[in-house]
Amino acid sequence: MTRAQRQAVVQAVKDAPIDLGGELELLRPEFEAMVASRAVPPDVATASMELGPVSGLRISAGATVPGRTVVFVHGGGFVVGTAASAVGLASAVGRAAGAESIAVDYRLAPEHPFPAGLDDVVAAYAALLDSGTPPASIAIAGESAGGNLVLAALVALRDRRLPLPACAVVMSPFVDLTLDTSSRSSKAELDPALSTSALRRRISEYLADTDPRHPLVSPLLADLRGMPPLLVQVGSYEVLLDDALALVRRAAHADVDVTLEVTAGVPHVFQTRMAVLEEAGAAIESIGRFIDRHTQRP
Amino acid sequence: MTRAQRQAVVQAVKDAPIDLGGELELLRPEFEAMVASRAVPPDVATASMELGPVSGLRISAGATVPGRTVVFVHGGGFVVGTAASAVGLASAVGRAAGAESIAVDYRLAPEHPFPAGLDDVVAAYAALLDSGTPPASIAIAGESAGGNLVLAALVALRDRRLPLPACAVVMSPFVDLTLDTSSRSSKAELDPALSTSALRRRISEYLADTDPRHPLVSPLLADLRGMPPLLVQVGSYEVLLDDALALVRRAAHADVDVTLEVTAGVPHVFQTRMAVLEEAGAAIESIGRFIDRHTQRP
Repeated sequence: MTRAQRQAVVQAVKDAPIDLGGELELLRPEFEAMVASRAVPPDVATASMELGPVSGLRISAGATVPGRTVVFVHGGGFVVGTAASAVGLASAVGRAAGAESIAVDYRLAPEHPFPAGLDDVVAAYAALLDSGTPPASIAIAGESAGGNLVLAALVALRDRRLPLPACAVVMSPFVDLTLDTSSRSSKAELDPALSTSALRRRISEYLADTDPRHPLVSPLLADLRGMPPLLVQVGSYEVLLDDALALVRRAAHADVDVTLEVTAGVPHVFQTRMAVLEEAGAAIESIGRFIDRHTQRP
Repeated sequence: MTRAQRQAVVQAVKDAPIDLGGELELLRPEFEAMVASRAVPPDVATASMELGPVSGLRISAGATVPGRTVVFVHGGGFVVGTAASAVGLASAVGRAAGAESIAVDYRLAPEHPFPAGLDDVVAAYAALLDSGTPPASIAIAGESAGGNLVLAALVALRDRRLPLPACAVVMSPFVDLTLDTSSRSSKAELDPALSTSALRRRISEYLADTDPRHPLVSPLLADLRGMPPLLVQVGSYEVLLDDALALVRRAAHADVDVTLEVTAGVPHVFQTRMAVLEEAGAAIESIGRFIDRHTQRP
């Protein structure tokens, strides 16, 4: 346990909080600038691509198993973030998994409320299948609101009887938009970016007129039977800790193979902090092993 | 997912249930015979040893990192099982971890109710420390009631300010002796060995006059702060599923590094079924990686 590194990261969160509840004309450039400030290794290559009606970014880093693909769904409260903002984390996951990553530029609220973003993730995955990539070679991964979209997409794909990817990975997933969790208050001081008012604002933009208990909006409440093997990672210093715990409980009761990794004393989506936190690299290595174990080789 | 293997194991459980609630003069030999019927690889070597006042079995299999030791605590509802009955699983765990295993012959109820068995586990660990084994080289592992004793021992050791082992592994741990779980009924048909009446009988023998809410009897209810990194494995077809889920929730809220692996469609302590179930081998390999990552090299 790298106690000093964890404490430094927690302090950095306190010193320079991003307020997810802020005005979007400020929040969006702020978010992109924060992401741009993180160095991406020089061997990471990106290229724009189309996945049916949806744009994406093909990201490669390191050696890959031919055909192995990670569909990556960025976070940002359904209202900020882009495929470009996901390059750092998506490339790290892809490198660890021996896979190419495809980050999806799904539509954002409030301009495009539910189900626009979800439809885009589903369409992008379906286009990847149509292009001939076998589902057994595909993993789907996402963080925060992107974890929500990953799970909702899996439920939607199952209900449409489309072949599911080999496995799924969600980091700090935001799966209960009813906000019915205790960590939301018990961890509030440790996780100032995701205040209740910020979450409520972004939820109302994403939902528009949809009930927060809709299973494709709060996939915690969906029937999870038939989901592929699922890896859930979360920090113990986050308001979304209970989202992860409740998701795992629900998946286990639905007879899903599910792995949960809780890293103590680290904040929301700590995996982005590879440069300063050993636990971030360890978590990404674990994601890589998980994807390697569950996706086929040609 | 090896669906056919999982189904065959589930059928085997239904066809030949061991009744944990049976008479001890029958249950004890039955349990030893069941364990003896499982082949142990020919390179596994065992030797009796003393750990202070407690007897144990030193078990070696395969190459080891010098000094690396797994203290192994067998299950059996606090009333059956011996260090010898643990050789199959303890040797597999030790082999995967590159460690020597030491199975502890703790005292059993009803002849020796709480805290006798727990005291023995604590004394065995303390004797190992006294013999010069550094705590950073030690993992502690247990299954079912043995998982209870592992966690209770860690709490007791922390409270006595003794150095804790590097990490802990519990398989299908029985941590809530108040029986306050929903999987006890929802999974009852799938897990006939651990019927409520069987659990109640064994609990009352272990507790004698102790309150089931005592934190060293139901370590789910203990303050878990300061526990070492913890790996919890469980099958989704067990009445103890909720024990594992609740334990992980409690550990996460106590800022413990905790990993949960739920394997769908397999029964209580499925790790013993290596010969017929790929998931058993995969789970043991995962334990090995976990111990390797968390224990030091000399």
